[in-house]
Amino acid sequence: MGRRSDHSRDEIRDMAIAAAAEHVEMEGFQSLTARKVAGKIGYTVGTLYHVFRNFDDLVIHLNAQTIDEMAALIQQQTRRKRNPEVRIRAMAEFYVRFATDHPDRWRLVFEHRAPRGLPTPVQMKERRDVMFEMVADNLSEISPRRNTQEIDHTATALWSGIHGICILALTGKLYLGGAFSMVKLIDTLIDSVLNEFRRS
Amino acid sequence: MGRRSDHSRDEIRDMAIAAAAEHVEMEGFQSLTARKVAGKIGYTVGTLYHVFRNFDDLVIHLNAQTIDEMAALIQQQTRRKRNPEVRIRAMAEFYVRFATDHPDRWRLVFEHRAPRGLPTPVQMKERRDVMFEMVADNLSEISPRRNTQEIDHTATALWSGIHGICILALTGKLYLGGAFSMVKLIDTLIDSVLNEFRRS
Repeated sequence: MGRRSDHSRDEIRDMAIAAAAEHVEMEGFQSLTARKVAGKIGYTVGTLYHVFRNFDDLVIHLNAQTIDEMAALIQQQTRRKRNPEVRIRAMAEFYVRFATDHPDRWRLVFEHRAPRGLPTPVQMKERRDVMFEMVADNLSEISPRRNTQEIDHTATALWSGIHGICILALTGKLYLGGAFSMVKLIDTLIDSVLNEFRRS
Repeated sequence: MGRRSDHSRDEIRDMAIAAAAEHVEMEGFQSLTARKVAGKIGYTVGTLYHVFRNFDDLVIHLNAQTIDEMAALIQQQTRRKRNPEVRIRAMAEFYVRFATDHPDRWRLVFEHRAPRGLPTPVQMKERRDVMFEMVADNLSEISPRRNTQEIDHTATALWSGIHGICILALTGKLYLGGAFSMVKLIDTLIDSVLNEFRRS
């Protein structure tokens, strides 16, 4: 190996996250190990564990980056749209698109189980909340008279529902073998929740 | 060990599934191995692999049993209710209850990845469809004039949405740290989808 101190700690962290992301994209998460990540970037496992507390910490950093990438894509694709309902529909569309383009990385965000001793880092929680907050902002534009709690509640119900369709479809667990597209199912949920939200 | 041929093939299969279920409930899926299951029932790994094609086949059988148990609970709790809307709400309630009582077994149904060479057995697909069919039956009672395709579409959107709330809540990934109960979020989704379904 012998490349020790060619890179700063931050550079090693970024290289490791990129290498882990590539492995998960190409070969799935189950075969990812610290040794493989270290090998890919030309460092030892020992060096890796100077940068990450443990393997789960590496996965948490990878997941944080996945969410950042997805949120950036969605923000980029929606910020120019003027109508909040159109924005919500576009958010769902690009959520599905990101999940479809990066199924293994996307699933890892939701399926990774950190060991009990390792609390969810604050920055992970903040990142996860970004999606819900974007939906809530648009709902409050649709119906400004509703209070924050009603808006947050509706945003949570709607976005969790969209997530449910997305994960079941992507893992091949949806009824009817694709007779209905994910997009149409999501449209039904958005129509229903927005109409109820406007009316009630 | 020396207990070979004390039990029939079917008995060994059932014992192995029960032992695997117990392990997953107590210690989670990640530490489950064929060796542990074999040890628990007093047989060798070799015997286990006469009964199951491989480890994934054992997991698939475990998952099939989990779905059977859940469907039986839901059917038992809903069949005496006369109102189809009440039945749908009760289905969701007991879906959440089963998932909450058996989080690791329930997650395994959705998170297990069979190797690419191993197709989903027909009986798994049939089992998964049971939940959607129960919802569809109730929707068609609510609005008998709607055609099968509309009913199946709505059932899929609604049940996938409920699943989304359930999985995000159970894995601690819901916004707002539990300020809203899963039940209220699910109610919002059911209200929205049923009102839209009746109206449109």
